Amino acid sequence: MAAGKILYAQSGGVSAVINATAAGVIETARDKGIPVYAARNGILGALREELIDTTKEAKANIAGLKHTPGGAFGSCRYKLKSLEQNRAEYERLIEVFKAHDIRTFLYNGGNDSADTANKVSKIGQALGYEVNCIGVPKTIDNDLVVTDNCPGFGSVAKYTAIAVREASLDVASMADTSTKVFIIEVMGRHAGWIAAAAGLAGNKAGDPPHIILFPENVFDPAAFLARVQATVEKVGYCTVVVSEGVKGADGKFLAESAETGARDAFGHAQLGGAAPVLAALVKEKLGYKYHWALPDYLQRSARHIAAKVDVEQAYAVGKKAVEYAHDGLNAVMPVIVRTSDEPYKWKIEAAPLDKIANHEKKMPKNFMSKDGFGITAAARRYLAPLILGEAPPPYGDDGLPLYVTLKNTAVPKKLKKFVPAK
Amino acid sequence: MAAGKILYAQSGGVSAVINATAAGVIETARDKGIPVYAARNGILGALREELIDTTKEAKANIAGLKHTPGGAFGSCRYKLKSLEQNRAEYERLIEVFKAHDIRTFLYNGGNDSADTANKVSKIGQALGYEVNCIGVPKTIDNDLVVTDNCPGFGSVAKYTAIAVREASLDVASMADTSTKVFIIEVMGRHAGWIAAAAGLAGNKAGDPPHIILFPENVFDPAAFLARVQATVEKVGYCTVVVSEGVKGADGKFLAESAETGARDAFGHAQLGGAAPVLAALVKEKLGYKYHWALPDYLQRSARHIAAKVDVEQAYAVGKKAVEYAHDGLNAVMPVIVRTSDEPYKWKIEAAPLDKIANHEKKMPKNFMSKDGFGITAAARRYLAPLILGEAPPPYGDDGLPLYVTLKNTAVPKKLKKFVPAK
Repeated sequence: MAAGKILYAQSGGVSAVINATAAGVIETARDKGIPVYAARNGILGALREELIDTTKEAKANIAGLKHTPGGAFGSCRYKLKSLEQNRAEYERLIEVFKAHDIRTFLYNGGNDSADTANKVSKIGQALGYEVNCIGVPKTIDNDLVVTDNCPGFGSVAKYTAIAVREASLDVASMADTSTKVFIIEVMGRHAGWIAAAAGLAGNKAGDPPHIILFPENVFDPAAFLARVQATVEKVGYCTVVVSEGVKGADGKFLAESAETGARDAFGHAQLGGAAPVLAALVKEKLGYKYHWALPDYLQRSARHIAAKVDVEQAYAVGKKAVEYAHDGLNAVMPVIVRTSDEPYKWKIEAAPLDKIANHEKKMPKNFMSKDGFGITAAARRYLAPLILGEAPPPYGDDGLPLYVTLKNTAVPKKLKKFVPAK
Repeated sequence: MAAGKILYAQSGGVSAVINATAAGVIETARDKGIPVYAARNGILGALREELIDTTKEAKANIAGLKHTPGGAFGSCRYKLKSLEQNRAEYERLIEVFKAHDIRTFLYNGGNDSADTANKVSKIGQALGYEVNCIGVPKTIDNDLVVTDNCPGFGSVAKYTAIAVREASLDVASMADTSTKVFIIEVMGRHAGWIAAAAGLAGNKAGDPPHIILFPENVFDPAAFLARVQATVEKVGYCTVVVSEGVKGADGKFLAESAETGARDAFGHAQLGGAAPVLAALVKEKLGYKYHWALPDYLQRSARHIAAKVDVEQAYAVGKKAVEYAHDGLNAVMPVIVRTSDEPYKWKIEAAPLDKIANHEKKMPKNFMSKDGFGITAAARRYLAPLILGEAPPPYGDDGLPLYVTLKNTAVPKKLKKFVPAK
């Protein structure tokens, strides 16, 4: 690797453990004597030359990132256009790298980020500026290919399984006279990984969740209602997990659907998500009393209940990213390779970004039960290790987790202002 | 106390720690050699003579109740009518008590339950059947009078403060390009205790939550929007906590309001709660990108993050209830008395049910800041001790909490069938 600095940027939706990756990057770089700059608010900070000097942070605060949710340097939703469409932005990145002697670019995100890191590597070569670009995996949606799983997912999976188990104990104890159908909506967009993980809450017949609605399946109201009714009659209550990405036969998200969708006073659709739409359907057709929950950001920021293995993997990909760059690797991603299901064993390997960028890993068909409402033994074998272990944050005397806030000292700018495209 | 058995019944909405109270009752009674029956599904089980013999449960399972959320014997929402309106039900209770030699009735609930326990005590006396009736406090809404606080509340308070802190870290890191306004809806109905507890998440100016909407105040859309805008402009984002019980100037819950209320395709109001209504308002009037969360039952069943002090108090009121009955006390409730704010000290005392039944404790005016959007130092002094300490449940090898399920062995019936009034 050429000498110089590392630039680390967080991208897209943050997670309970993305800062653990940042800790892996910074601590490993410090050990090697390499300074790390971080981009403020992700790639936008790199384009705007808004850089943070992490060498100014105390050791304890960097260590504290291992147990602090959110994105410590800020993240953003901003996808660079293609090289042909907006070459200026790629060239600007190289200009910023040159100005600050950045020789390693670590981009911590999902598919899009892998693609960007790949392109930046290419434009660097084209412009004769040597920069090692490493994509560092992060996405709660677990939809990256090649890697066995994605840091961030395991903790949401654990949160969701625990939430389903706990809330179902509540519902079960009240079902005689109160709520009979409980619906919880989970994230994951087009992939049902998080919804599937909810299935880990149950071990035997009759255990919640009783119905999982995957985005991979078209929603069938009649089959759904029949299963709700059968479950209430048999078990006494019914816990439903619905992925936010579930669509109806019309190809629209449940909440958008003209037939079932909720609308606010201004006529906006998609106000309430899928859960309230299902709740209304249950009430209308079956008359059961319902409750529904939509944990939203709570599920992906719940560092207090993160999976230990997820924290470890998040840290490991950050550490390996620095080592790969130091060893001269370019346009690769440290991916998680599973070497054994039980006992669960894993290692990190380098995989080319070309194979990862812009692909999406959907759930295999054989992970969903035949009726489409549950998970199979194969799914369980894959998912179970990912929620293992507890790694609670330290708590203060006030009963609240001690999350760190960095100083985020700005690096003085050297270049002219640049306004990123919208 | 007359010899005989204890009947223990859970009432109303369950909590993360109501089973800890059950453990306190059963373990204390076992020490004294008193058998405990539990009513299946609360007072309905007592009326239907559906009783559970807790002496059949293993010691480890009873101990496990200390860390298991929900209601282990089932609870119900069923309020006995007045003695005049339905004397038959009170007489039925005494008949069931007589048949099974029940000489102590422990009713674990809120205001209504205190009232019922009080009335059962009176009808017992009128019918010449000696039974010691003790109301045992439980309500996440924290709205019982006399007692300093209610078991169940502290854990929801802790959950809510942590959720606000964690989700706000997420929002803060994405606000540059994504969500600027995050709204979380909390329980509590007519009392703003849970909403107020969210205020513990922040310690200094600018910390989230930035706006708390209490049910004690009439919702003022203009003032709310102005504060949202000012916060986004100053802090970069805005976290809003809204109590489910907030009402507009028309006296209706936000979600019911004709002006702002969400309606589903069937025209039903109150589908989505207050949070999505506020979100729509923010989008319509200010154009900010928003997200909202509605944890619903997750907040009151989250035993994994219960406050240690809450678990201890829940256990203590169960223990004291048995001791009071054993000492011959009748028509009382073990209440929590605070003897010191800092360090926090408390004890349990007996208070007459007459003083507690059917009263509701609202938040004092001086707990809300002048602008109505935050909490005061007085509120902080009261709330802070209630979320102290962590008491995580044991976890299994599968990464999930080990919650116990009781056998709940039925006691053979001795009486004719009785159908409770609807």
